[in-house]
Amino acid sequence: MEHHPLEGSKMVKDVSLQQLKDMLAEFARVRGWEQYHSPRNLLLALVGEVGELSEIFQWKGEVERGLPNWSPDDKEHLEEELSDVLLYLVQLADVCGLDLGQAALTKILKNARKYPINPT
Amino acid sequence: MEHHPLEGSKMVKDVSLQQLKDMLAEFARVRGWEQYHSPRNLLLALVGEVGELSEIFQWKGEVERGLPNWSPDDKEHLEEELSDVLLYLVQLADVCGLDLGQAALTKILKNARKYPINPT
Amino acid sequence: MEHHPLEGSKMVKDVSLQQLKDMLAEFARVRGWEQYHSPRNLLLALVGEVGELSEIFQWKGEVERGLPNWSPDDKEHLEEELSDVLLYLVQLADVCGLDLGQAALTKILKNARKYPINPT
Amino acid sequence: MEHHPLEGSKMVKDVSLQQLKDMLAEFARVRGWEQYHSPRNLLLALVGEVGELSEIFQWKGEVERGLPNWSPDDKEHLEEELSDVLLYLVQLADVCGLDLGQAALTKILKNARKYPINPT
Repeated sequence: MEHHPLEGSKMVKDVSLQQLKDMLAEFARVRGWEQYHSPRNLLLALVGEVGELSEIFQWKGEVERGLPNWSPDDKEHLEEELSDVLLYLVQLADVCGLDLGQAALTKILKNARKYPINPT
Repeated sequence: MEHHPLEGSKMVKDVSLQQLKDMLAEFARVRGWEQYHSPRNLLLALVGEVGELSEIFQWKGEVERGLPNWSPDDKEHLEEELSDVLLYLVQLADVCGLDLGQAALTKILKNARKYPINPT
Repeated sequence: MEHHPLEGSKMVKDVSLQQLKDMLAEFARVRGWEQYHSPRNLLLALVGEVGELSEIFQWKGEVERGLPNWSPDDKEHLEEELSDVLLYLVQLADVCGLDLGQAALTKILKNARKYPINPT
Repeated sequence: MEHHPLEGSKMVKDVSLQQLKDMLAEFARVRGWEQYHSPRNLLLALVGEVGELSEIFQWKGEVERGLPNWSPDDKEHLEEELSDVLLYLVQLADVCGLDLGQAALTKILKNARKYPINPT
């Protein structure tokens, strides 16, 4: 199997939302997919992936943190569905012209003000 | 209003998934919220936020890229809901013990192999 | 408070999907809301209500059948969110020109063939 | 192919929520599936089906009422996904001990009070 040009990206230690946004925009551009990436199309695709994520958990009853009894295959499947949700979320923010990373930091700050830490 | 210690985080130019994960884990830890952050609780919280995101778009008919006719308030509301989805997604991956950033890169690579670029 | 013309409908013992469809179509028609009821608008409204339904369950951990420890107010809130999902689902099927009741019976029959009862 | 005992149900002209509830409860009982039908399991299964429903609409842009350009196969697929959402919703209400039909009528009545018809 030949070496894929994106392979090097697996070396990245700590991927940023900006990097994901740029990679996905280029991914869609070179495939001519931008025409399909309207906000509501991407939103419904996101909902579809949230559905697939939920299906993984649907018959399991309560699940422990760390997924102690899950097989490597089940964990890999979960990683894929979590990623699919993220990738559509990043693209939805992008086509809306919004900076998801900055928005997330702003929201954390807002939450910190809303829920102050109780003094002991 | 006093200066909030998280304020400096707005200076970050390009936030990574690892940084968000660490901030959110600390946020939950100091508030004693870890006990509520089981995988299925976080998943349902994520679904709840996807619902709020959908409500923004529900009566609008098709929406143009860049949201040309949206007010600043509507855009800010959208940024908040997009962020809420992201923050629960990051926390869900974290309590499952998975590396969301690496998973996303792996998924992009897999998609690149699955959908090769057509030669012109 | 004057008597509402729909009040009598509470006497119905066993409401059908056809009755709900007719009531909701009339409800939208007399309010001039049909113009907003495109399939994707209704679908996103449905997703929004599924989000509100999920929020009721999000921090509860596993929930027992029959909701033994829920307050009457919490049960009423749940009834409202379950209803909102149903009402948008009925309207979505209607604007798509599909018979939801017949479709549901057909699906049950299909499932019965797919999952035969094990002989003892 | 032998005649299936549920076949007669297709003759029902106007199926009620009560009938669906009874059919589904019996369906689960005779297959020993009641043990899996906890409220949150059924809720996540519902979310999964809403995801599949959304996937049908995700790349289509705005869709016209009546689905004028859809093939019979696409309409049948849509009927199945709409039904799956309904069937899980009915079962979720049932295991919660709630009467979905009455709840829906009550919600329509509440909505009628909330949104009075404008006099001309």
